[in-house]
Amino acid sequence: MPTNRQILLDNRPQGEATASNFRLVSSETPALRDGQVLVRHHYLSLDPYMRGRMNESKSYAQPQPLGEVMIGGTVGEVLQSRHPRFQPGDAVVGMGGWQEYSVVDADQPGLLRKVDTTHVPLSYYLGAVGMPGVTAWYGLTQIIAPQAGETVVISAASGAVGSAFAAVAKARGCRVVGIAGGPDKCRYAQEELHFDACIDYRQHPDIKSMAQALKAACPQGVDGYFENVGGYLLDAVLLRTNAFARIAVCGMIAGYDGQPLPLQNPALILINRLKVQGFIVSEHMDLWPQALQELGSLVAQGRLRPRESIALGIESAPEAFLGLLKGRNFGKQLVKLI
Amino acid sequence: MPTNRQILLDNRPQGEATASNFRLVSSETPALRDGQVLVRHHYLSLDPYMRGRMNESKSYAQPQPLGEVMIGGTVGEVLQSRHPRFQPGDAVVGMGGWQEYSVVDADQPGLLRKVDTTHVPLSYYLGAVGMPGVTAWYGLTQIIAPQAGETVVISAASGAVGSAFAAVAKARGCRVVGIAGGPDKCRYAQEELHFDACIDYRQHPDIKSMAQALKAACPQGVDGYFENVGGYLLDAVLLRTNAFARIAVCGMIAGYDGQPLPLQNPALILINRLKVQGFIVSEHMDLWPQALQELGSLVAQGRLRPRESIALGIESAPEAFLGLLKGRNFGKQLVKLI
Repeated sequence: MPTNRQILLDNRPQGEATASNFRLVSSETPALRDGQVLVRHHYLSLDPYMRGRMNESKSYAQPQPLGEVMIGGTVGEVLQSRHPRFQPGDAVVGMGGWQEYSVVDADQPGLLRKVDTTHVPLSYYLGAVGMPGVTAWYGLTQIIAPQAGETVVISAASGAVGSAFAAVAKARGCRVVGIAGGPDKCRYAQEELHFDACIDYRQHPDIKSMAQALKAACPQGVDGYFENVGGYLLDAVLLRTNAFARIAVCGMIAGYDGQPLPLQNPALILINRLKVQGFIVSEHMDLWPQALQELGSLVAQGRLRPRESIALGIESAPEAFLGLLKGRNFGKQLVKLI
Repeated sequence: MPTNRQILLDNRPQGEATASNFRLVSSETPALRDGQVLVRHHYLSLDPYMRGRMNESKSYAQPQPLGEVMIGGTVGEVLQSRHPRFQPGDAVVGMGGWQEYSVVDADQPGLLRKVDTTHVPLSYYLGAVGMPGVTAWYGLTQIIAPQAGETVVISAASGAVGSAFAAVAKARGCRVVGIAGGPDKCRYAQEELHFDACIDYRQHPDIKSMAQALKAACPQGVDGYFENVGGYLLDAVLLRTNAFARIAVCGMIAGYDGQPLPLQNPALILINRLKVQGFIVSEHMDLWPQALQELGSLVAQGRLRPRESIALGIESAPEAFLGLLKGRNFGKQLVKLI
């Protein structure tokens, strides 16, 4: 069996996460038992939710245990199989974690899924046609539920979730406005991701300035907002909401290091009769097939072709992940392992 | 025609509202035109929402214009009628304002409604079987939408909304927990309004203490919260919410004088996948008949018999209203005019 390089969570961040929180180890992959499949990972997905798992504190998910392989989505190919549904060479997506190989109990539902790479690149099953894409789809269609002609806004617009959000929202006839960090990301959002406008938050570092930028970008007000960031962005968007606007709360990455992130004016929830709803896409597995079908179609039609930021080798995962948290990636952040 | 004493909004509050914001005047009631009805008010309703209307600032409703009669719900009897659907002696409910008489264009839908006082006291059409009752019903049944056995919490529990909330929630098999100010109100909430428990916020003046009291009163956690107050109460309740809890935001009376009222930890909306939704009951008139029917039945069955705080004479309305804002009333606050 091949030697497997793995990245473990060694210790928990004190404030900001650092490379020293992780540890690279090597181990032999165990021999397969009946029902198991050996997968060689081609790509590892890096996603903001992983930062939350690194904390000890109560959250919606179990903390990542210390000394174990970091959780994470992976795509790859089956190398060996002792399960009748999987054959060597099958392209598969799963939650293999930060390592080069994984042994999967393929009988457990949802752990390993075969995918078709005819019209969709393999790596997209970690982004546009994977968890980030379904996340965008769920927040947009199930919580914001926009009418054609409404204006919807998303923070972290140039990332994996943002790109899928724009494609799905444009397909529904919305005006789509992004918030991203820096002129390059904003240009990319407008030129390649079909955003109608994109606001560079670095040019608008406080509530008042951001609210003015939103007013200019959303002349009809904001009907829906998809929150990935939190902090002053949410405050500013609330000031621009129309009556009965819907806010899908998917992430508050601004607070992952433990900073207090108060919402300045919750009375706006009443004044504008807002619905503010948090969600976790893994709790809505029943809707994944429908979402993946729409997202796959958008990719196949060329209407959803986001860029990827690709780090090379499992040893590069910690630095690539820390860069993602600081917004240094450009599009979906992946680690290429082969 | 009778002389009519009226209370006008004379000037807007600078911070806290005071009696000097109001002005008492007398005028002659005009002669009726075709389609009009002259109503003598028996009771004027005083409600927290009126404080919001006194401000100039943007809110969900038009500000109360200066120099005009204060807005408010009234019940009374028809004295004269030039409308075929109303006869002298009819008991009616409407939005007559802070005055002794009103002339109503009875053709305009919703302005004046005949009520039956066989099983429901006339004054209850301003409380349990009126706007406050429907407010409680809407937030509970349409936003919180509890299952039997779930725990629901309401602030300002001993008031008009709170009493209806408890009756409707008990009828649905919920555990119902109130938050109110002082031991007398808490005892009343438990002994007469059927709350399972009531927390005296004066004994728990900070987030931590209130969160501990909520933990004791809600051993299964909080599945629904009806917010009338805001501030640290909302912060404390959010700490005790179960996954997928629903927060109906009806009022934030703690912020009506302009104090900043930040929400300390909005990340809980994500962590606990909460739905936080603001509403105004007057935007859901289609549901009023259904709500009023259920509330009237609960009153007729003796399961909803809240107390009333009754001030005497139109001249007493300003002080009674200011007392309501400070929680000095006990149950539904009315002004008796006859």
